Amino acid sequence: MTYCVGLMLDKGLVFMSDTRTNSGVDNISTFRKMFSFNVEGERDITLMTAGNLATTQALISLLEERSKYHSERDPDILTVPTMFQVARLVGETLREVIGEHANTGQRADAAFNATVILGGQIKGGKPCLFMIYPEGNFIEASEDTPFFQIGETKYGRPILLRAYDAAMEFDEAVKLLLVSFDSTIKANLSVSLPLDVKTYAEGKFSPHQQLRVEPDDNYFQQISQGWGVALRTAFQELPDFKF
Amino acid sequence: MTYCVGLMLDKGLVFMSDTRTNSGVDNISTFRKMFSFNVEGERDITLMTAGNLATTQALISLLEERSKYHSERDPDILTVPTMFQVARLVGETLREVIGEHANTGQRADAAFNATVILGGQIKGGKPCLFMIYPEGNFIEASEDTPFFQIGETKYGRPILLRAYDAAMEFDEAVKLLLVSFDSTIKANLSVSLPLDVKTYAEGKFSPHQQLRVEPDDNYFQQISQGWGVALRTAFQELPDFKF
Repeated sequence: MTYCVGLMLDKGLVFMSDTRTNSGVDNISTFRKMFSFNVEGERDITLMTAGNLATTQALISLLEERSKYHSERDPDILTVPTMFQVARLVGETLREVIGEHANTGQRADAAFNATVILGGQIKGGKPCLFMIYPEGNFIEASEDTPFFQIGETKYGRPILLRAYDAAMEFDEAVKLLLVSFDSTIKANLSVSLPLDVKTYAEGKFSPHQQLRVEPDDNYFQQISQGWGVALRTAFQELPDFKF
Repeated sequence: MTYCVGLMLDKGLVFMSDTRTNSGVDNISTFRKMFSFNVEGERDITLMTAGNLATTQALISLLEERSKYHSERDPDILTVPTMFQVARLVGETLREVIGEHANTGQRADAAFNATVILGGQIKGGKPCLFMIYPEGNFIEASEDTPFFQIGETKYGRPILLRAYDAAMEFDEAVKLLLVSFDSTIKANLSVSLPLDVKTYAEGKFSPHQQLRVEPDDNYFQQISQGWGVALRTAFQELPDFKF
């Protein structure tokens, strides 16, 4: 499994992804699931992937490769003019990768499917956040639904629903995501540290802040232990039930 | 979907179940999913069901019918001597019901499967809690895993993991379950009020307390709103993150 969240704030975008991949509980590895495409001062694009690892790696490699040979392959992720076009390009490339393996007589127990969260900004447009499906189609975040989750989405959702606020500072949003990831990691072995974190500030056209949270990270330990205590205290302070 | 939880406490057992059933979002109904079998002063048994409604209703009807004709059908749920035997009986009956429909040339989009939480006490034994699978086999709760959830289990699990304590009073446990149900109801349309609640006190051999929480229940509204506020406060009180 996987857990990735993309948040849209008034100030910009926040991304967090775990790094655990597995094919069965007896075969786990660590792989990066967050990728950046950047043209300094012009565009900053972030992708996070969930699903079949061979598919998501092929997707990222194709996007990278094609962005290096503009003359042969145009448009590419570094030249298309809008975030909507980026989403279409990523969707088409994803469908192409899945299609290559799905219809060659090969069969696998696990599907070749993958899902992508895409966010960023290109000069002339606003910051955008998309969720792209294996079929290549996609949806865009809005004020009503200002965040997307992929992978193991359920354990970490209640706190996002309750504590998200579009006016949050980046630091506060990262704290919120760490709490959401902590609840997920506690409940599902297939989601785990290290975590990749990235923030994007509107109008900056380059990454604002980036960080990898390692398993022995002191702050994460504080959040993880503190949240258990805080939840119990919050629970105790609710009005008592009487039959 | 469905959400049911059975908790084992030092003092006894607590059960809570929702009542929403659906076949598609355009076809929802309200059905009881919690059932009691009682011989005053000798045994008190509670069943909660998730899965195909025709299967779970047939299961309960068969168990009830067979308990009325001891002479023809023995043993039955009101006469077997231990909770372990009750679990076997329920498991066998469940497998029988599913088998009847699964192998008659009939096919349905949804499987005929169902899962059951079974708890209670029979004179001479301790209170027990079981989870019974569609195949008829089952597992028993222990100190290490003192509660079972069936149906939509994920949204409401983090708070159970953090705030459960075997030494809890019944009232406190009901409050905990209401918080867990509230998180689930907020995130999944196919889980909904009214909720059925039952507590069983060790050695009582009859229901301790029973209650139906209606959608306009004043206390549930307080919990639902209060928990959002409490979560946000708890979140704010965690140490701040700094890049």
